[in-house]
Amino acid sequence: MTGEEMHALVERLYPLCRSITGDGVRATLGIVGELLELDVHEVPTGTQVLDWTIPQEWNIRDAYIKDPAGNRVVDFQRSNLHVVGYSVPVSATMTLAELRPHLHTLPGRPDLVPYRTSYYAPTWGFCLSQDTLDGMGEGPYEVVIDSTLADGHLTYAEHVVPGRTDDEVLISCHVCHPSLANDNLAGIAVATALARRLREPRLTYRFVFAPGTIGAITWLARNRESTGRIRHGLTLACAGDRGALTYKRSRRGDAPVDRVMAAVLRDRPHTIVDFSPYGYDERQYCSPGFDLPVGSLTRTPYAGYPEYHTSGDDPGFVSPQAMADTLETLWSAVEVLEHDGRYQNLSPYGEPQLGRRGLYGSLGGRSDTKQAQLAMLWVLNLSDGEHSLLDVAGRSGLPFGAVAEAAAALEGAGLLKRVGEGA
Amino acid sequence: MTGEEMHALVERLYPLCRSITGDGVRATLGIVGELLELDVHEVPTGTQVLDWTIPQEWNIRDAYIKDPAGNRVVDFQRSNLHVVGYSVPVSATMTLAELRPHLHTLPGRPDLVPYRTSYYAPTWGFCLSQDTLDGMGEGPYEVVIDSTLADGHLTYAEHVVPGRTDDEVLISCHVCHPSLANDNLAGIAVATALARRLREPRLTYRFVFAPGTIGAITWLARNRESTGRIRHGLTLACAGDRGALTYKRSRRGDAPVDRVMAAVLRDRPHTIVDFSPYGYDERQYCSPGFDLPVGSLTRTPYAGYPEYHTSGDDPGFVSPQAMADTLETLWSAVEVLEHDGRYQNLSPYGEPQLGRRGLYGSLGGRSDTKQAQLAMLWVLNLSDGEHSLLDVAGRSGLPFGAVAEAAAALEGAGLLKRVGEGA
Amino acid sequence: MTGEEMHALVERLYPLCRSITGDGVRATLGIVGELLELDVHEVPTGTQVLDWTIPQEWNIRDAYIKDPAGNRVVDFQRSNLHVVGYSVPVSATMTLAELRPHLHTLPGRPDLVPYRTSYYAPTWGFCLSQDTLDGMGEGPYEVVIDSTLADGHLTYAEHVVPGRTDDEVLISCHVCHPSLANDNLAGIAVATALARRLREPRLTYRFVFAPGTIGAITWLARNRESTGRIRHGLTLACAGDRGALTYKRSRRGDAPVDRVMAAVLRDRPHTIVDFSPYGYDERQYCSPGFDLPVGSLTRTPYAGYPEYHTSGDDPGFVSPQAMADTLETLWSAVEVLEHDGRYQNLSPYGEPQLGRRGLYGSLGGRSDTKQAQLAMLWVLNLSDGEHSLLDVAGRSGLPFGAVAEAAAALEGAGLLKRVGEGA
Repeated sequence: MTGEEMHALVERLYPLCRSITGDGVRATLGIVGELLELDVHEVPTGTQVLDWTIPQEWNIRDAYIKDPAGNRVVDFQRSNLHVVGYSVPVSATMTLAELRPHLHTLPGRPDLVPYRTSYYAPTWGFCLSQDTLDGMGEGPYEVVIDSTLADGHLTYAEHVVPGRTDDEVLISCHVCHPSLANDNLAGIAVATALARRLREPRLTYRFVFAPGTIGAITWLARNRESTGRIRHGLTLACAGDRGALTYKRSRRGDAPVDRVMAAVLRDRPHTIVDFSPYGYDERQYCSPGFDLPVGSLTRTPYAGYPEYHTSGDDPGFVSPQAMADTLETLWSAVEVLEHDGRYQNLSPYGEPQLGRRGLYGSLGGRSDTKQAQLAMLWVLNLSDGEHSLLDVAGRSGLPFGAVAEAAAALEGAGLLKRVGEGA
Repeated sequence: MTGEEMHALVERLYPLCRSITGDGVRATLGIVGELLELDVHEVPTGTQVLDWTIPQEWNIRDAYIKDPAGNRVVDFQRSNLHVVGYSVPVSATMTLAELRPHLHTLPGRPDLVPYRTSYYAPTWGFCLSQDTLDGMGEGPYEVVIDSTLADGHLTYAEHVVPGRTDDEVLISCHVCHPSLANDNLAGIAVATALARRLREPRLTYRFVFAPGTIGAITWLARNRESTGRIRHGLTLACAGDRGALTYKRSRRGDAPVDRVMAAVLRDRPHTIVDFSPYGYDERQYCSPGFDLPVGSLTRTPYAGYPEYHTSGDDPGFVSPQAMADTLETLWSAVEVLEHDGRYQNLSPYGEPQLGRRGLYGSLGGRSDTKQAQLAMLWVLNLSDGEHSLLDVAGRSGLPFGAVAEAAAALEGAGLLKRVGEGA
Repeated sequence: MTGEEMHALVERLYPLCRSITGDGVRATLGIVGELLELDVHEVPTGTQVLDWTIPQEWNIRDAYIKDPAGNRVVDFQRSNLHVVGYSVPVSATMTLAELRPHLHTLPGRPDLVPYRTSYYAPTWGFCLSQDTLDGMGEGPYEVVIDSTLADGHLTYAEHVVPGRTDDEVLISCHVCHPSLANDNLAGIAVATALARRLREPRLTYRFVFAPGTIGAITWLARNRESTGRIRHGLTLACAGDRGALTYKRSRRGDAPVDRVMAAVLRDRPHTIVDFSPYGYDERQYCSPGFDLPVGSLTRTPYAGYPEYHTSGDDPGFVSPQAMADTLETLWSAVEVLEHDGRYQNLSPYGEPQLGRRGLYGSLGGRSDTKQAQLAMLWVLNLSDGEHSLLDVAGRSGLPFGAVAEAAAALEGAGLLKRVGEGA
């Protein structure tokens, strides 16, 4: 998928009213399912998942605040952000003063509508711009939220690309946010593109599309035994804004995925930050009972841009180029995960004579040494069975690709033997 | 004790002529003893203490240099700095040329009187300002030092605040300097205030008021077996000048006290320096045979200010605010030592649902997370029995107090169990 | 040898046409042999050395390109750089167009003649300045290289300064470059001077003068069993330019020689870089099969100056002062290697009383402590049998010499006992 195709997917998913349960999530997974074979799981209300319980399912058809003249001053049909997620149904007439405690605005950004939810405390509310609120008279207003909270299911999906080994790479993205493009439709789109690009990999790649927090907890509760297969993992979010990439390390801090992402990002504008138990579902994967090697890849991170969790995070906020760049970065990481390994130099006493094997330019004395030759020298020097190709790339400063090509050439010449796994 | 009360104590102690032995030390401990119950120890001259021997006791009543007109050009009654500490008695008439080898000045700071001693080589001398020296004619001068060097005692004192455990915190300050306010009357005053503030602590706190070098060596010689109880220690000196705090690490460099002080100082202007075997009595506590976990807390450190070891280090050089700040810093360290511990998260798989336990705000989607909530997430995430609360504070960047409160709240909710000691 | 004497040696060696074999190397070793007793080794063509084979021996008498007027446009007699090293014999008449593929210039530095070789691919060529090439007409030219490639020998030499132990220090410099002063006649000269300066050392010092790559490989092949005696090593190159010193760490990165060189360079302008498998014969010594503790000392490093591998690297490019500075640096390293050790403080409880042993000034209270006293305190504090004098120098920031003198004084006073080897 190109950046433009990913962006088109974001635009198609944007209008749906997602939440942690309900038909919006199902519709979202239905569209992703057109591009990717998905296993969709429905988990009933009341199911115990780790310390949590699956809540009632929430669905909403309409909601508005109608002024005395009959105009919808606030209208769910124009943006699903206008209703506080999980609002209980309401049908009432009330003055602005009575309504006011249920209205949420961003006084500092008076043109934007905030995003608010109340999953576990039964309440209701509307989100609107401060400008709209400032224009509202005393009313009375007709206030309607046509929602249902009823026993139903929590919905999540998985897509697995089987590899030659059972060792797994987990890519997880949350699917519970309504009309917010960067958070997390871009992540869904990039994950979909990555899944479509994988062809008969060495490792098994598992993509989890689940509601934030309760969805990841549900997945963990139902896959507790098999989490041991996860060798590397990433949560993917805020994947489409125009900022530089940010990698947040796993709780372990020195897991292979942490080293791989550092290597992959080295030659790109980027930031690397330490783990913190706040952000996306790495919070769950990295809880101390699981402590999985799961980092988080974003562009501008969690809460790091003014449009975060507001109506400003619309499809125009994410760009095809940024999503393509996120995808290519992930692909570079996949290439390391697929091709890294530890090798043994079979001619470890002195340098082997590369020239006579056609691996080296014959005219000496020149000071401009080619990267490929340097990569061969580095691979030979560090291939003592201890260092991986990723180690070689890290210590030499050479791109992983050049190092992997050198290893392949040396293996072809009988100078190198693969002896173990890499990162 | 307030900063003003500490400053008043400094002013009261200032005129006394202290040395490594003698009545000045006794008078000093007598005044401190009005504020704090002290065990005063007298160790006889000639007692072998480690590699050293307790010297003769030195006392002095008067000393002066009288000019031909009968004026006391240099007068011990005006400042006890005028006599080289441990000067043998003298009564002579001599010309300036004869007297000159016994006169010490600071040509670079012509208005200040230096501080000099000669504990172990029998000699005598006067300290005076260069300005005074420049004004002196050829004499002859009447030169008198009315001192005694005789068998007696070395005096030091201890104050112990018993805790619920035998594990000890050692606070040591030298009491041998005459009229020098920052070095070390401010340290004595802050230590006194800290001792008075402690109430039924968990750890046992031992305060040692002893002459520098020989006093600490004497204490170590007489408490050799019990030094194993010292879990943490600090020498306290230069505690009242207006500079920022400086912490000098213990010889070990990574002792708990080193980590505690780093955490406590993190949000204050400060400097941290590595151990060196020069400075105050950390030299003795950190000698390789003992290697105790004792660091050193000062404001501007040893020899780091122009007034150091001169008449410029008078009560005006130290401030109530600075002493109060030193005391609060020590108190923060006490709070860490008292409350640190290792905990086990009892719901370690995924995050426990804090909301249903009343530990978490219910309205989601807001990006302004409160410090208390963050602290709970950090404590839960790192409470695997390995990390202490101090570790949590260090890794999270949160204040120790917030982390300790979060731990208490989580323990109260049955989500956390204390499993071991901390720093 | 003074800097001037070393420079005179460079000038004397400069005109000789060295290569990896041949009479130029023999003549070079002959001159060095006037200053130093050398064991000269001749290894026959065809001998297998590790992964390599000793090539045919190359000798050259004359070479030129003569224009239609009979002028030698390019003339080996003026500079041996004009012929590509190991050129096969040629005697032909050809136009510039035919000749052109055999001509090497530096278009970016049109006044300089480059240095080129082709040891293992039979070819021939001339190196000349771009300016000369630009002035050449179409010809035809008489082209002559009067060289021989025939079975013979590879020549290298060793000089050993026997020590009281078999533990060895290896100093290796390449002797295969023709008229290039900094690379590596300066290295040869400094190594010669160092060897002459050593007198009955503790360690055994082995100097290897060998052609680059194949020479080092030959030495390693013939001394495989005894490489285990090498405790420390340096390749020495580019030892005479006016740039600051550069130390390149051994492959191990934390070998004693790495720590010694860091200590020695600390108070000099310098750069320290990590190992890379490109440069001089550290490539061979640090191949993973040997992994010897061999670093590399240069001034401006490999390929780091515009004159590198060109006619610009002539005797004027190197200076007596720079060579003397390189020699003094090596001498400082020798002093560390000779005198480092681990000691035990025999009075480890508290500080011993230095004053009564005459090791300490008696007048206390002064803030200007002498380096010698500080060094004694540091040595006493860290002499727990674990730390070496080099460790003491590193941690204290004091010069190694001051630390070693302090150790000697303390040992003389019975306060210290040597218990083991140092770096």
